[in-house]
Amino acid sequence: MDFLDEPFPDVGTYEDFHTIDWLREKSRDTDRHRKITSKSKESFWELIKSLLDAWSGWVVMLLIGLLSGTLAGVIDLAVDWMTDLKEGVCLSAFWYSHEQCCWTSNETTFDDRDKCPQWQKWAELMTGHAEGAGAYVLNYFLYVLWALLFSFLAVSLVRVFAPYACGSGIPEIKTILSGFIIRGYLGKWTLLIKTVTLVLAVSSGLSLGKEGPLVHVACCCGNLFCSLFSKYSKNEGKRREVLSAAAAAGVSVAFGAPIGGVLFSLEEVSYYFPLKTLWRSFFAALVAAFTLRSINPFGNSRLVLFYVEYHTPWYMTTQLGKYPVLEVIAVTGITAVLAFPNPYTRRSTSELISELFNDCGALESSQLCDYINNPNMSRPVDDIPDRPAGPGVYNALWQLALALVFKIVITIFTFGMKIPSGLFIPSMAVGAIAGRIVGIAVEQMAYHHHDWIIFKNWCRPGADCVTPGLYAMVGAAACLGGVTRMTVSLVVIMFELTGGLEYIVPLMAAAVTSKWVADAFGKEGIYESHIQLNGYPYLDVRDEFTHRTLATDVMRPRRNDPPLAVLTQDTTTVEDVEALIKDTDYNGFPVVVSRESERLIGFVQRRDLTLAIKTARQKQDGVVSSSVVYFTEDAPQLPASNPQPLKLRRILNLSPFTVTDHTPMETVVDIFRKLGLRQCLVTRSGRLLGIITKKDVLRHMAQMMNQDPESIMFN
Amino acid sequence: MDFLDEPFPDVGTYEDFHTIDWLREKSRDTDRHRKITSKSKESFWELIKSLLDAWSGWVVMLLIGLLSGTLAGVIDLAVDWMTDLKEGVCLSAFWYSHEQCCWTSNETTFDDRDKCPQWQKWAELMTGHAEGAGAYVLNYFLYVLWALLFSFLAVSLVRVFAPYACGSGIPEIKTILSGFIIRGYLGKWTLLIKTVTLVLAVSSGLSLGKEGPLVHVACCCGNLFCSLFSKYSKNEGKRREVLSAAAAAGVSVAFGAPIGGVLFSLEEVSYYFPLKTLWRSFFAALVAAFTLRSINPFGNSRLVLFYVEYHTPWYMTTQLGKYPVLEVIAVTGITAVLAFPNPYTRRSTSELISELFNDCGALESSQLCDYINNPNMSRPVDDIPDRPAGPGVYNALWQLALALVFKIVITIFTFGMKIPSGLFIPSMAVGAIAGRIVGIAVEQMAYHHHDWIIFKNWCRPGADCVTPGLYAMVGAAACLGGVTRMTVSLVVIMFELTGGLEYIVPLMAAAVTSKWVADAFGKEGIYESHIQLNGYPYLDVRDEFTHRTLATDVMRPRRNDPPLAVLTQDTTTVEDVEALIKDTDYNGFPVVVSRESERLIGFVQRRDLTLAIKTARQKQDGVVSSSVVYFTEDAPQLPASNPQPLKLRRILNLSPFTVTDHTPMETVVDIFRKLGLRQCLVTRSGRLLGIITKKDVLRHMAQMMNQDPESIMFN
Repeated sequence: MDFLDEPFPDVGTYEDFHTIDWLREKSRDTDRHRKITSKSKESFWELIKSLLDAWSGWVVMLLIGLLSGTLAGVIDLAVDWMTDLKEGVCLSAFWYSHEQCCWTSNETTFDDRDKCPQWQKWAELMTGHAEGAGAYVLNYFLYVLWALLFSFLAVSLVRVFAPYACGSGIPEIKTILSGFIIRGYLGKWTLLIKTVTLVLAVSSGLSLGKEGPLVHVACCCGNLFCSLFSKYSKNEGKRREVLSAAAAAGVSVAFGAPIGGVLFSLEEVSYYFPLKTLWRSFFAALVAAFTLRSINPFGNSRLVLFYVEYHTPWYMTTQLGKYPVLEVIAVTGITAVLAFPNPYTRRSTSELISELFNDCGALESSQLCDYINNPNMSRPVDDIPDRPAGPGVYNALWQLALALVFKIVITIFTFGMKIPSGLFIPSMAVGAIAGRIVGIAVEQMAYHHHDWIIFKNWCRPGADCVTPGLYAMVGAAACLGGVTRMTVSLVVIMFELTGGLEYIVPLMAAAVTSKWVADAFGKEGIYESHIQLNGYPYLDVRDEFTHRTLATDVMRPRRNDPPLAVLTQDTTTVEDVEALIKDTDYNGFPVVVSRESERLIGFVQRRDLTLAIKTARQKQDGVVSSSVVYFTEDAPQLPASNPQPLKLRRILNLSPFTVTDHTPMETVVDIFRKLGLRQCLVTRSGRLLGIITKKDVLRHMAQMMNQDPESIMFN
Repeated sequence: MDFLDEPFPDVGTYEDFHTIDWLREKSRDTDRHRKITSKSKESFWELIKSLLDAWSGWVVMLLIGLLSGTLAGVIDLAVDWMTDLKEGVCLSAFWYSHEQCCWTSNETTFDDRDKCPQWQKWAELMTGHAEGAGAYVLNYFLYVLWALLFSFLAVSLVRVFAPYACGSGIPEIKTILSGFIIRGYLGKWTLLIKTVTLVLAVSSGLSLGKEGPLVHVACCCGNLFCSLFSKYSKNEGKRREVLSAAAAAGVSVAFGAPIGGVLFSLEEVSYYFPLKTLWRSFFAALVAAFTLRSINPFGNSRLVLFYVEYHTPWYMTTQLGKYPVLEVIAVTGITAVLAFPNPYTRRSTSELISELFNDCGALESSQLCDYINNPNMSRPVDDIPDRPAGPGVYNALWQLALALVFKIVITIFTFGMKIPSGLFIPSMAVGAIAGRIVGIAVEQMAYHHHDWIIFKNWCRPGADCVTPGLYAMVGAAACLGGVTRMTVSLVVIMFELTGGLEYIVPLMAAAVTSKWVADAFGKEGIYESHIQLNGYPYLDVRDEFTHRTLATDVMRPRRNDPPLAVLTQDTTTVEDVEALIKDTDYNGFPVVVSRESERLIGFVQRRDLTLAIKTARQKQDGVVSSSVVYFTEDAPQLPASNPQPLKLRRILNLSPFTVTDHTPMETVVDIFRKLGLRQCLVTRSGRLLGIITKKDVLRHMAQMMNQDPESIMFN
């Protein structure tokens, strides 16, 4: 038996920034599975091992759910504490947040409880005066100072220890899931630093959120646990199944929305999502939500309905981008200085959204609920007729309008900074503010003009016919839908978030409408734009390729190029192969019967070839530069004095993917997408003509997109 | 220009019970799209037409949503009326159901209103006596008689007019969506007859439901509207996109669960479900739910939360199967006779489920809520402490146990009868009954044994710690999950149905557990079993193919078969081709350069070939039996006296799908699934060796499944 029958140590791994071959990974996994199944009949121990192997997928899911749930709980608690630290400190125990500090206070009303004596604002602690202009300025100053400190720490940690920890991470995860290798992007350092800096960035009060980064953190957990099982650590295809499920767990803990998480992973993030992954994602999301609930960071036994914070939409880069630390400090400073005076921007964005969604009950004390009540009217508490707005509402409208402008502008500059930053909450905040303003306007119009045609039939005087809170909810859904182009997962997340199962129809209508409107401006959501800006090789399943080009137009070599670099099955020498490896940088080479017939017999990877020749030169006697490399089944027997042949059929892929030169590119694109190919050979009547790689396909698609459609038609 | 450049009239359609070629359909659609785009620049009218074409997908969705919502509303109203007709009639207007009849009644309590004077039971109307043994027997007799009449009408209509209208239809729709042609299955007659007989079958009180059949009805609507647009009617691939969305609309109206419908279509029914279809399904489900709500069959403005009726699980066939009408009559008779005396089986199954899900409030009058109250205790209405069960509860437990056995047995015999029948509600009923029984048992154990370890920590005396209604809900979800193996869509449907968003975690846990347990007995859900029993060519995406066979083991011709029937590109005569068509029944023939070289150049469909030769013989001068058929680009110029060559390159598919003989079958199966191929050619070094069709793949998979795994290993 040939010693080369043993697999080479490193055969089958990929280099950084390369694309994996899904079909190959899949067939490697099947081989593995087959080996374990046949071994399991040999002994009881092997049977146990095979059962463990079969269940390892569920075990990994369990671990991911547990760890990501725990991390999310810890992050929530830390953010809570540090956000309050910007305003003051708890004297009884400095690690308590404002709410925890006053939890056991004896004061009875909510308002008094907020001002419990254990909790002291900085000005009070330092000067003894809680009120007055001096105290206001000191509090303002310390608020900005803490914010700057947090964001400086965050950006420094990211820069020094884990550059991959910045941003939301979703575009990169999409790219990784589509089969690209970015080493270290899901590593342990990234996990640690992203968790810590996420807390710092959110606490600093920047207009960013933690949902996207939590997806990244969950995927890091997934990657971490993959390394425990060779089934996943050694197979890039299987690893991606785990990562898809981890993404679902991430959204599950970010919003407390397990079903929404699964659908988000399906609709937005994942590339290859078989039913098996659907079930596993479902399980991981369940465990994660359950863990978070057990940690119970907010002292109530519900999931985190609306305790999420910040995220960032829209796209633009500034000149400051070259100085990341300076950029972060500047934006934090501006955010903190502008946000403090306006009550709607000073508080955390999630609290703002929560208030905007709420309806004005009779007991509501918010400024937004300052309506003029009819003193003669006595009605049950939750059935309030329509009323004219009071001065508080008009005041709130002005502040909300300013907050809207501020949020839109500042989030444009925040996105893309070198700190962990998410995307959901700021989009929702913008939509919710706009929705609430429209809602109040419609409500007041209905009150003052009951006789207008649009109100006549369904809104009698004295009835409660307009709910501004619902407008805010629909606005938030529409804005988020426009930014990300989610539909089903958006609606599910919205109602898991709000519990508003009854409003499913307006939410669905908002999602569909915002998708249509946004699609009219351009088909890409924010994540796809990001992927394109960064130039990742991502083959979007949504782009339809409708041009009339054929495989022959895309394949290399082009008309004036040198001929394709091929190997022959029984005439190439070791020297020739080495020269070919040295002169070219292709990932692999087709093997043909002979240069005359050009009939294809297989494909050999560059990596495997290099390794095989190196090993043979070291360990196999008689293999020298003039040895002939044989890809055939049998090599001739030569006398021992001659250079010994080198048999390499073992590393030859005998089933390379081929299409004919007449195949429409549309079909080729479809094949690349669905089968996750890395390259494809082009033949005509069995003769090898050229090769098409994933990069060729992407380049061609970009080219076609930029050309005038007419010129393509008559090309 | 050759007149053959015009496409043949019928090229590209498929025969009944054949499989479509997805790739081909897709490329035909792209051609169409391209033509319309280039034409749209010619005139304003063409531009309008192209815009209409682009929007036709959404228009079809709108129409499907409107029609299926309307049909579901009408079915609901009719079922309501006819179910009540079995017990009595409304004197003021005979077309009113019991509820509508008593709606305007002046009686104030619910119990009195049920007995309003306008509504008369049959015995009262005929004999004047409402009570007594005679009246009971007469009512019993008429109940059975009406049931028999309805079911006889249903089975007769199905038999005579539309045999395809029987059953739930989901297995067939799954098969059709996977690319199989069953002509008439989604036709107008099926639509009409299924709608009518569904009303009759459900009203007859058989243990069956309307959810599955409503999916079939919605798909018929989809097919109907496809015929309005050539884009869909002439392309089997595009038609299937519409049908996937229609299935979502069907579930949407069956349960009033639009999101659940989309997920059901994705998880359970569809085969090819791109994101575009996801969005369209979402829209169709939205419109359907909205339409149903506007019809408002139940007089409240909610969606049909728990107003669904009946469905059927499990599998068995009886000897009676040979006499379908007799079978239906017999089963209806037995069902009606046994169901009438037990209050839990007499009422409609959905009412039963609704009662089982409900919690016992203080005002509940149901027998299930007959607890012994502590007279000294005064508490708010909805916070009732735990109490001992009264005699009514023990009575109810016995009746429920009997109902459980009855439901399980009767649904086994009901399923597979020749009338429209669904699957969801009886499964849910069985699960809900079992769940409620367990729930009450646990509740009473907790009450009597507060000190047991399992209750000690969380269930103090006087606390309300066990909710039997929740046990029923979880039981229903678990039972339905076990029968169908749904996970995500199951949970979403359950909480859209019940509004119980808070119970998402126990529901998810039930779904995952029931899936694991059921999978231990066999991987197939009820629909897959049905597909296999009927022998449809369905390539299940869930089956994993892990055997070591290669393409060469599966391809035809086998070792001892005659050689593959091929055409050569420039030596075959018209006569030869006609002989080949006559002697074989293959769907198509590969075309090679020459019999010696066997190099593949393309593939030609039998249907196209037959048509082309027939047309040429009729219309083209000089084409006779001895004419040579040319598949090359140019045919030689011959003198007019010679038989003229017949050029057929036009019908030649120049990009047939090929794999090498060494390709693992695992990869081949993957390619067939993902690309929806009909056949694939097998080559070695560019030489044509054989062909693999979808049927060969299915046959091979079945073979491998039945073989002992060990024997495969060492084959």
